[in-house]
Amino acid sequence: MSEPTLHETALRLDSHDPLAKRRELFALDTGSDHAADAAGVYLDGNSLGALPAHVPDRMADVISREWGRMRIRSWDESGWWTAPERIGDRIAPLVGAAPGQIVVGDSTSVNVFKAVVAAARLAGDGRDEILVDATTFPTDGYIAESAARMTGRRLVPVEPAEVAAAAGPRTAAALVNHVDYRTGRLHDLPGITAALRSAGALAVWDLCHSAGALPVGLDAHGVDLAVGCTYKYLNGGPGSPAYLYVAERHQAAFDSPLPGWNSHADPFGMTPGFEAADGAVRGRVGTPDILSMLALESALDVWDGVAIEDVRAKSLALTDFFLRCVRAYVPEGAVTSLTPEAHAERGSQVALRCEAAPAVMAELIARGVVGDLRRPDVLRFGFTPLYVGFADAERAARVLAEVVADVMGGRQGA
Amino acid sequence: MSEPTLHETALRLDSHDPLAKRRELFALDTGSDHAADAAGVYLDGNSLGALPAHVPDRMADVISREWGRMRIRSWDESGWWTAPERIGDRIAPLVGAAPGQIVVGDSTSVNVFKAVVAAARLAGDGRDEILVDATTFPTDGYIAESAARMTGRRLVPVEPAEVAAAAGPRTAAALVNHVDYRTGRLHDLPGITAALRSAGALAVWDLCHSAGALPVGLDAHGVDLAVGCTYKYLNGGPGSPAYLYVAERHQAAFDSPLPGWNSHADPFGMTPGFEAADGAVRGRVGTPDILSMLALESALDVWDGVAIEDVRAKSLALTDFFLRCVRAYVPEGAVTSLTPEAHAERGSQVALRCEAAPAVMAELIARGVVGDLRRPDVLRFGFTPLYVGFADAERAARVLAEVVADVMGGRQGA
Repeated sequence: MSEPTLHETALRLDSHDPLAKRRELFALDTGSDHAADAAGVYLDGNSLGALPAHVPDRMADVISREWGRMRIRSWDESGWWTAPERIGDRIAPLVGAAPGQIVVGDSTSVNVFKAVVAAARLAGDGRDEILVDATTFPTDGYIAESAARMTGRRLVPVEPAEVAAAAGPRTAAALVNHVDYRTGRLHDLPGITAALRSAGALAVWDLCHSAGALPVGLDAHGVDLAVGCTYKYLNGGPGSPAYLYVAERHQAAFDSPLPGWNSHADPFGMTPGFEAADGAVRGRVGTPDILSMLALESALDVWDGVAIEDVRAKSLALTDFFLRCVRAYVPEGAVTSLTPEAHAERGSQVALRCEAAPAVMAELIARGVVGDLRRPDVLRFGFTPLYVGFADAERAARVLAEVVADVMGGRQGA
Repeated sequence: MSEPTLHETALRLDSHDPLAKRRELFALDTGSDHAADAAGVYLDGNSLGALPAHVPDRMADVISREWGRMRIRSWDESGWWTAPERIGDRIAPLVGAAPGQIVVGDSTSVNVFKAVVAAARLAGDGRDEILVDATTFPTDGYIAESAARMTGRRLVPVEPAEVAAAAGPRTAAALVNHVDYRTGRLHDLPGITAALRSAGALAVWDLCHSAGALPVGLDAHGVDLAVGCTYKYLNGGPGSPAYLYVAERHQAAFDSPLPGWNSHADPFGMTPGFEAADGAVRGRVGTPDILSMLALESALDVWDGVAIEDVRAKSLALTDFFLRCVRAYVPEGAVTSLTPEAHAERGSQVALRCEAAPAVMAELIARGVVGDLRRPDVLRFGFTPLYVGFADAERAARVLAEVVADVMGGRQGA
């Protein structure tokens, strides 16, 4: 009996996948005149998650009935006003947080500002340095620089692996990414958090590339503050609002740089003096963008009954299998993986360095395999366990090999 | 021949109203089991604008096709990426701004923070005071306080009428509301702006209650910075994104406290150093919330071919007529208008002080006349000229008189 092919292996893995049926909850297999739109392989869910199939009907109701007919009454009667904390509590179990510690609203950048400023203030005036992940997604670094400037601190960029060692008596806080957006490397959240806390500093985590892909354990590991977006593995829609986690022990002293009326203890009292609300609500700012927020709330339904540990197991199996297919199909030397082999260091994406990355990614997309390019030379493939299967991974690697041969054929021989 | 009744007068005024047909562009007359939902009088458009009737179809397309099928490609191919500045240019003519000076995104509160911090920095370190409208909507005051604290300035609350006199060599900037959210009083934007500028200070205006209701003339009057929301007279939907105006002469030195990656000169370069984009784009922060933003963009279609001067003329006629009906129908002493009689001092709402305001407003809403309550004793009625007519105004006053008689009957005699 001959060895099964990778395609046969993929079909067998899919048939044993307990999450396989979740794919049906997403709008992925509808027709289109563009190969990249549908019936292709969507490996860019770490940039924009796919549309859960029930969201359009829900949003039609939000727009036509809640806004169009109930209008202003919906702030109370349709639960608009309490959406930020209610949706925060829906996200909480996915990142290991007890209820009452997460609010949804604003962009990730704005939440980074709230978190880093608040962390500096919680740490106290004696601590004049803020560490920032030197490999961070740029916006975190820009915003942390502004937070440092506006709280009279110095910003110190440090490689994530060096954060624990760099933390000392001058460290107010460190802002670190749980998973590197470029390489897909998973950083040691428990170890770095513990080191920061034992140095008397606060740990602020950016969960954009981990929430919804792997267990985070915010409460269990004693994280102080965290932020994340909701449009990647949480499928909330383009630019859906981000979230802010403030550990319960910090809430009473959480001093926001953006104390808008939504974070007031009595928002409709319209009093001139600011008095902060109790709890995570203190992280709110202005009027929440209801359409985007309720699309996110609806999108979170796809998580009902899903354990994040099962998502993690499938994610690792998928990225392992994709790397195996790439090794089997793509000529040696054409691409080099930047993604760690060790499971403990891997997020839910595979990043391949490729000399001809721009041309290769353009052609991949034209042939229905959608990943994304990180300039200048990185092909990035995100694996969303709720809707990506093993046959997708095999097909993506196969098409990649074909594209590499077509695009780089001449170059490789040179 | 007898004098026409107020109802007959209303019908005549409606029949001569050049904006009357605009009402058909809104979802206002659909059926519902709740009197307040439809076929009533909606006078809360200064809190949440009514739904333009074409928006649901547009949003179904945005959600199902642009997000659901095109997914990540929509950032370029559906114009998502450039939406903040494109929609800013749609709002610009309504507030008297040339193109390239307005970006849409974030909440009003967040934009107040950007504007006040940037104004303080533009004014320079020698100016250590920030004036704030003492009658402001509270969030502006809370946020201005934070901006003052974080830029080392002192916040000085001043009545709007005193701002011009209070501005001096220590004044960095003043944050003033164009129209008071509570009383509907219109402040003297040209005069206050001129006084601030001649004192060497910057004028920062909050346009939440004026944009879309009356001419603002940002460029003509030399305003420095301005912010506003889009869910009131601009009908953008619940919590739709706010906007920021940065006068062209300030853009090169505009130094945002929230320098997110969307305001970078090369956002996809992903470089660790921040280099601000040119132009109004510098006011962007993080990834824009596309669903809310594109609902707003679609909603702005109702303005095609409308001159803001015609809107203003109708607004004044409507509020004049409503006050006339209130005087005619409501027993003397039951309500007192807080809204200035002088046109030059009136926005597009009527605020009536009433001892029994909470009970009166609840009953008004139950009878299909939707205004809102500003605690403890203000009945607020907003007049949106694009969809409110003279017969609505007459009916609202008539129902108000009935409710006042029923609710306050005993009390008035006491």
